[in-house]
Amino acid sequence: MGGLQITHNARPSTFEVEAVNERGETVPTPIAGEHPLTLYLDKRELVTLMTLGAAPEHLALGYLRNQRLVGSIDELAAVQVDWETGSVAVTSHSLAVGGVPIWDDAGRGETLAARLERRTVTTGCGQGTVFGDLMDEIDRVALPAAARLSEEVLYTVMDRVRRHESIYKVAGAVHGCALCSNAGDSRGEILRFVEDVGRHNAVDAIAGWMWLESVAGADKIFYTTGRLTSEMVIKCAQMGIPFLLSRSGLTQMGYEIARRVGITMVGRCQGRHYLLFTGGERFVRQPVSALA
Amino acid sequence: MGGLQITHNARPSTFEVEAVNERGETVPTPIAGEHPLTLYLDKRELVTLMTLGAAPEHLALGYLRNQRLVGSIDELAAVQVDWETGSVAVTSHSLAVGGVPIWDDAGRGETLAARLERRTVTTGCGQGTVFGDLMDEIDRVALPAAARLSEEVLYTVMDRVRRHESIYKVAGAVHGCALCSNAGDSRGEILRFVEDVGRHNAVDAIAGWMWLESVAGADKIFYTTGRLTSEMVIKCAQMGIPFLLSRSGLTQMGYEIARRVGITMVGRCQGRHYLLFTGGERFVRQPVSALA
Repeated sequence: MGGLQITHNARPSTFEVEAVNERGETVPTPIAGEHPLTLYLDKRELVTLMTLGAAPEHLALGYLRNQRLVGSIDELAAVQVDWETGSVAVTSHSLAVGGVPIWDDAGRGETLAARLERRTVTTGCGQGTVFGDLMDEIDRVALPAAARLSEEVLYTVMDRVRRHESIYKVAGAVHGCALCSNAGDSRGEILRFVEDVGRHNAVDAIAGWMWLESVAGADKIFYTTGRLTSEMVIKCAQMGIPFLLSRSGLTQMGYEIARRVGITMVGRCQGRHYLLFTGGERFVRQPVSALA
Repeated sequence: MGGLQITHNARPSTFEVEAVNERGETVPTPIAGEHPLTLYLDKRELVTLMTLGAAPEHLALGYLRNQRLVGSIDELAAVQVDWETGSVAVTSHSLAVGGVPIWDDAGRGETLAARLERRTVTTGCGQGTVFGDLMDEIDRVALPAAARLSEEVLYTVMDRVRRHESIYKVAGAVHGCALCSNAGDSRGEILRFVEDVGRHNAVDAIAGWMWLESVAGADKIFYTTGRLTSEMVIKCAQMGIPFLLSRSGLTQMGYEIARRVGITMVGRCQGRHYLLFTGGERFVRQPVSALA
């Protein structure tokens, strides 16, 4: 198949505008970039994403992956971001559009044209992502039962995320996601950190990077600044990551899907506080004696 | 045409689950509801929205309105929410599906079928809302130039929102929007307050209520806990509201569209602080002498 040709066209993430504060002073204020990026797969227009533009190629890949529009990274020949036209063109080897079936993990084949047609009526999210198919998939996900997350590593992740350089600290108005190691000496270290104006874009960009680099999820931890809604849990499970952490709270469907898929989900991670909601069998608290 | 038949099937907004905190204690924790709600227009499936379910009828109406899928509220005969099937059925008088053109404010006609077809390829957002058409529309919006927002009323709105009973205070994981008066003795009062798991749902539900009740936007103020992204600004402008306030920050496109449409946008409203970003000509600061 040959290697995937890929551009690296990140955009500057912040821009400065002038605002007037409550004292009547004009203050230069950094704001987060937001750009429409139209995704084409073999010249077929799929979607326009509003993005910070920090990882546009990975975002496009993660979108195709998480929407299950492309079955394997090997099917792709090129990912080319062009900000002059606000587009990312993804080219496949097979020119799969309309004709060649996409095979999912369960061995079900469907043409892209058929899948896109179905997508028309299922496009949802709080409002945004294809939903119906994802729930089908959830029941086939098997997250590693033997994986463990210690409280110590949880705190390490929280510390590293807090200290990480971020657009959020400068300009706000973005959500961040971090993929962290849960293996060997690097436990708790941040492997990828992506911010975007939408929660889903940030997680898609990490999923795209993992897909591109063949990174497995079993020995990883996923952290998001955003809320733990149904889709965040589904995407984490799709990536095969058993641990999902958030600074924020969760919704009922996030909770129910987390239980159903057996993910270990920890919310309200702030300071030295957290709430373990699901999958407690994988979580190892510090023994009380060690705290004395 | 006769009156619109409408259900009032709000769902309970919070549910209690058990979580384990950092001290190993099991704590009952309220979490926000999140339910799929599939929207049908004349039996045609349009979209599945993930919603808190606090104002499902208004959400459905606001979605149809803000996506410009129905031209006038008078075209509609019924809005019926049924949680057993997770559906909201909207019925029109004209059985417009596919056949009858929808006329927009500029007098352009298009059938629903054609509009839905185009929607397939333009569905975006950070990821979610139809975008292309909205930008076309923005240039036809004329917000009232003579409207004024005083700093005093700004602070009143901030105080009322802060003191308002909310799901957010109980369970987090939701965004809130408030429609406030900017007229007469009720200046600064909250007229509608809607929370939802998605920012867009909350604003759509308020738009739906305004549409249903023929409430004009010119003498109103819109407050959101969410970020001021492009779509938030567009939706506020679509509602004809000249003032947009947020506790959060803004994005570059939110800023650019706010300038283009001439909306008065104030971000970072917290405590006695704010940042006035655009439309300063409508904003009246307290004279310095009055502060002494």
